[in-house]
Amino acid sequence: MQTLGTNHQATIKKTALAREQPEPAQVAPNQLQDQLQVNGDRLNRSLAQLAEIGKLPKGGVSRVAFTPEDVLARQLVQSWMTDAGMEVRIDAAGNIIGRYGGQSDEKGEAPALATGSHIDTVPVGGRYDGCLGVLAGIEVVKVLQEQQLRLQHPIEVIVFTDEECTVLGCKAMAGDVVSDPDYYRRRDGTPIQSCLEKVGGNWAEIETAKRFTQVAPGQWRSQIAAFVELHVEQGSVLETEGVEIGVVKGVVGQYRFVVNVTGRPNHAGTTPMNHRRDALVAAAQIVLAVNSLGVDIPGEQVATVGSLNVSPNAVNIVPGAVELTIDLRDLSQAHLEALIQKMKQDFEAIATATQTEITIRPVLHVLPTLCAPAIMDTITHICQTQGLSHSLLPSRAGHDAQEIGRFTPMGMIFVPSRTGISHAEDEYTSPEQCTQGANVLLHTFLALDKLYRP
Amino acid sequence: MQTLGTNHQATIKKTALAREQPEPAQVAPNQLQDQLQVNGDRLNRSLAQLAEIGKLPKGGVSRVAFTPEDVLARQLVQSWMTDAGMEVRIDAAGNIIGRYGGQSDEKGEAPALATGSHIDTVPVGGRYDGCLGVLAGIEVVKVLQEQQLRLQHPIEVIVFTDEECTVLGCKAMAGDVVSDPDYYRRRDGTPIQSCLEKVGGNWAEIETAKRFTQVAPGQWRSQIAAFVELHVEQGSVLETEGVEIGVVKGVVGQYRFVVNVTGRPNHAGTTPMNHRRDALVAAAQIVLAVNSLGVDIPGEQVATVGSLNVSPNAVNIVPGAVELTIDLRDLSQAHLEALIQKMKQDFEAIATATQTEITIRPVLHVLPTLCAPAIMDTITHICQTQGLSHSLLPSRAGHDAQEIGRFTPMGMIFVPSRTGISHAEDEYTSPEQCTQGANVLLHTFLALDKLYRP
Repeated sequence: MQTLGTNHQATIKKTALAREQPEPAQVAPNQLQDQLQVNGDRLNRSLAQLAEIGKLPKGGVSRVAFTPEDVLARQLVQSWMTDAGMEVRIDAAGNIIGRYGGQSDEKGEAPALATGSHIDTVPVGGRYDGCLGVLAGIEVVKVLQEQQLRLQHPIEVIVFTDEECTVLGCKAMAGDVVSDPDYYRRRDGTPIQSCLEKVGGNWAEIETAKRFTQVAPGQWRSQIAAFVELHVEQGSVLETEGVEIGVVKGVVGQYRFVVNVTGRPNHAGTTPMNHRRDALVAAAQIVLAVNSLGVDIPGEQVATVGSLNVSPNAVNIVPGAVELTIDLRDLSQAHLEALIQKMKQDFEAIATATQTEITIRPVLHVLPTLCAPAIMDTITHICQTQGLSHSLLPSRAGHDAQEIGRFTPMGMIFVPSRTGISHAEDEYTSPEQCTQGANVLLHTFLALDKLYRP
Repeated sequence: MQTLGTNHQATIKKTALAREQPEPAQVAPNQLQDQLQVNGDRLNRSLAQLAEIGKLPKGGVSRVAFTPEDVLARQLVQSWMTDAGMEVRIDAAGNIIGRYGGQSDEKGEAPALATGSHIDTVPVGGRYDGCLGVLAGIEVVKVLQEQQLRLQHPIEVIVFTDEECTVLGCKAMAGDVVSDPDYYRRRDGTPIQSCLEKVGGNWAEIETAKRFTQVAPGQWRSQIAAFVELHVEQGSVLETEGVEIGVVKGVVGQYRFVVNVTGRPNHAGTTPMNHRRDALVAAAQIVLAVNSLGVDIPGEQVATVGSLNVSPNAVNIVPGAVELTIDLRDLSQAHLEALIQKMKQDFEAIATATQTEITIRPVLHVLPTLCAPAIMDTITHICQTQGLSHSLLPSRAGHDAQEIGRFTPMGMIFVPSRTGISHAEDEYTSPEQCTQGANVLLHTFLALDKLYRP
């Protein structure tokens, strides 16, 4: 469980602090609340307007964290939060926290029902990834404001800082920031300190961004009663199944390894087959063994060799060395560990059979975060009430919710991504699908307000 | 059988012109000739002296064809030929031909018993590859000169031009030069015309270098009665077997292919295993199928995937495309064709199973050249007479003899390469092994002089 190298995602060392789960909520028969709907036109207009900042030719967005585009987008989103009646603050990690007061929040300190996501993008990204979750959260509050409704809980809508690279915002809330700032230095060399300054954060006080405190040995108090994130799937499971809403079971844990295979480079003509120690033949067996971990073992895990480099990589030389990467993801940490055990046994057998040396170096480990069963059940119930088709699935990509779920009950709502494409200009979710997701978020909040006592 | 792209080794379109083989020679019981031995010290001194030109720190040699080092080495070798009583000429392809007259060669036109190799090297090469064959040939003539002996046949010692890159010298003798000079343009862009000028050749007259003429339909007359090349093995078969002399069965034919696998790039997290079309999984199966062609099918063929490149080659992306190369060598053209047939069937099954597209593009084809059985038997007999351990093996690297063997009976003698290393500074064959090889060459010539009537 140790991590590892220069990767930005540090190992999560503490276990989740999720409280005991209450029974699934039954939405109270309040007719007004049952009939509430988000304003789909307004939501989709705000998505389009936000996508103008950093807009790319095909409609995608380039809005990398801490760039002028990111700063401009943050200002726009803050103004929308204010318009929706929220008080807005920025924490030391640069997270934007919009808070809409609740009935049981006289002192402004009651645990909130929270939602949110991110508005930064990869260098060539889409307009839905992250943004939908933030803007749907604001739309939910806007609807309550229009109806002059306040829930028992305060509601928070959070814009997490730099989800696409350092994942710093949500990690700071979960108390998982590494103390060495160089760990978060940007790829272009900019120190994280000056990045945070640009968005109103403060590296020196980063620990103040933590959203839970220890009140007694083994006992924590969270400022967030529950967290629900709406996000595009970024995969094609929902589209393939023809389903409108994905009820997420959890965000997978992930291992990454770099594997080095050492054989002996030799002349491809003059070296008989039985004199060879061909590193690529061994690597090919590794690729198939890793694929078999995903395909042949029951479960929902995925296993990928994405990168493979041969040395010396010449047509007439028997390969002497290969370096390749392995990416392994699953919801169950125990299952992941069993897969890795099997993988290592496979590799030992391959090394013996091919007379090569195989070394495995872990470079990343992120623990899985399971969604709270009560929230999953609530979302499922909402889908049934709203007449939306739905299915359970894991999130195999990382999300801000993964960190927040380490200290408070968490759930995620997915809407379909066309052909599963994300992190690309072609990323697309229809206006109707965006609206459906926001409505499920709205009614989940109404239900959770009753489920969790403030 | 077509070739193909920018590769310097053109397809051989004509079949070998080897004459009908006479019965193996029995060396005549001439006591003087039986006792002849090369001067091993002189041979090894000349190897060391030649290695001074282009010498590298660890004792290797950098003497790429047409460089000042190559020109200087050619001058030195020519002077040694003259010292050994040979007449020296340079043909239009820049080949140096030293001729030691025979008893039955009044007009100087009798077909010669020929030997030789090359003195150019790869950019970082050894001191034995090629040079041993040339200098042993000169040493053989030197011994005859000292004993004031002339064989019935004239003897030719040939330095072939640019074996390591364009293979132009021996190809010109075999009439296999492509008419477009751009085909032989050097990697640095220098035209072949100016290269040939530097070494006394003349591109405009390249066809005059051909060493055989058609005298009637289906009938050719060769200027070379037989050709025998002594060379270091450049592999580790002899060393592994503990054998002193390799009797070469032929120079293998060779096919090279570029294979493109097209799948679909996808997020390695969000794409379930059953939604993938992973090009690297298909490529891994190809690597193992190609290796199996070499390992599991009876024969002496070798099959190699030496180069493999993945796209986009990122840890978290399911590979969308792979390009790889295949190198396939064997002595039998029919066996090669059967292997390729099997390979294509395998690839079709892989494409279906992995839902990928696999295309195969041939980029090189060289026909095998078999050694003349009479010469193989002669060399074997000499080894027995000289008390040298020996074994039959194919040459899986290309040699000048491969081209000469297309129009006249050809044989090759191998001596061991330490750990099989060649084309590197570590290339090494001991002085004793060099001397043994030269003695076998000497006695092979004495025997062939009786075997082939001048």
